[in-house]
Amino acid sequence: MEVYIEPLAKLIAAFTKLPGVGQRTALRYAYAIINMHKEDAAEFALAIEEAKEQIHYCSVCGNFTVNDPCDICSSRESKAICVVKEPKDVLAIEKLREYKGVYHVLHGALSPLDGVGPDDIRIKELLGRVADGSVEEVILATNSDVEGEATAIYISKLLKPLGIRVTRIAQGLPMGAELEFADDVTISRALSDRKEI
Amino acid sequence: MEVYIEPLAKLIAAFTKLPGVGQRTALRYAYAIINMHKEDAAEFALAIEEAKEQIHYCSVCGNFTVNDPCDICSSRESKAICVVKEPKDVLAIEKLREYKGVYHVLHGALSPLDGVGPDDIRIKELLGRVADGSVEEVILATNSDVEGEATAIYISKLLKPLGIRVTRIAQGLPMGAELEFADDVTISRALSDRKEI
Repeated sequence: MEVYIEPLAKLIAAFTKLPGVGQRTALRYAYAIINMHKEDAAEFALAIEEAKEQIHYCSVCGNFTVNDPCDICSSRESKAICVVKEPKDVLAIEKLREYKGVYHVLHGALSPLDGVGPDDIRIKELLGRVADGSVEEVILATNSDVEGEATAIYISKLLKPLGIRVTRIAQGLPMGAELEFADDVTISRALSDRKEI
Repeated sequence: MEVYIEPLAKLIAAFTKLPGVGQRTALRYAYAIINMHKEDAAEFALAIEEAKEQIHYCSVCGNFTVNDPCDICSSRESKAICVVKEPKDVLAIEKLREYKGVYHVLHGALSPLDGVGPDDIRIKELLGRVADGSVEEVILATNSDVEGEATAIYISKLLKPLGIRVTRIAQGLPMGAELEFADDVTISRALSDRKEI
């Protein structure tokens, strides 16, 4: 649309690269930038540059980090490793402030249909971390979808022969859910994984 | 939330300054930035800086522009001036490629309840533009809400004594609308503004 002046068109194009942002939303964001104080806009641009420059993957756990190894890897005992799919899953667990172990980010999940095999995600790195025998438990916290399940089963089969305790996060009804509206698989899991109260 | 590493927290804070963007969306956007190619992220940051640096208001019409006066003001005859509330309204009309006159962006609408009076929007500047008698028509294309209507009526009362033709964009059923679901005011307007076919 050549009705936009060039810097506006460029800014709109930049915003449409964000997930779920179309032309209309990009235009709204662009107007917000133009109406911002000069310092706020400069800060915004700087935040993008700095995030891109400073944030790397931890060479140990694969999570986002500024320092390598990351703050979690370098400050906690690694007797338990919690295996997740994405860096944002680490945040989801860290928010609870309950888990005191370390993490291992796979950066993906096994999905033969999409051509994602064991070598495409960080499984080898996980095996390397448990090789010295110091790890007592590996908690598989991959998603409870088909790929996440397959990934958990695959990893557990590799680790169990090594004598490591391998656990999987519980599945069942989410808090506040009504049985009536839960899907069959969830109800079935919740039933079979029932426990004494 | 101190669970975020600092550059990520800063980036999230920057994104939450955009309209309608909360923590979750900001986090999604931040991840998109981190996963971008380095060049794309640099381009993004540059687009923000350049837009903020290069885009100004046209001293004549008040629209966004890189050059002053803007391309529209400097390339078209100003026999007709279309008065709108915001720069984005100019884009909405320009997209049609039908209107060949110039614009006047008020940057607001009269709203006594919000403390916005005639001196707070660019009405004086409009009077200045029509003072030399070269303008033949002023088209009031403010919104058809209460503020937009009040603004249009206020301006028309100022301009009519000067012998300028003052018009208001038509109101009625929008294209594709069903009479049944239109509000009373719209139906009433549509009826009273009916024309021969």
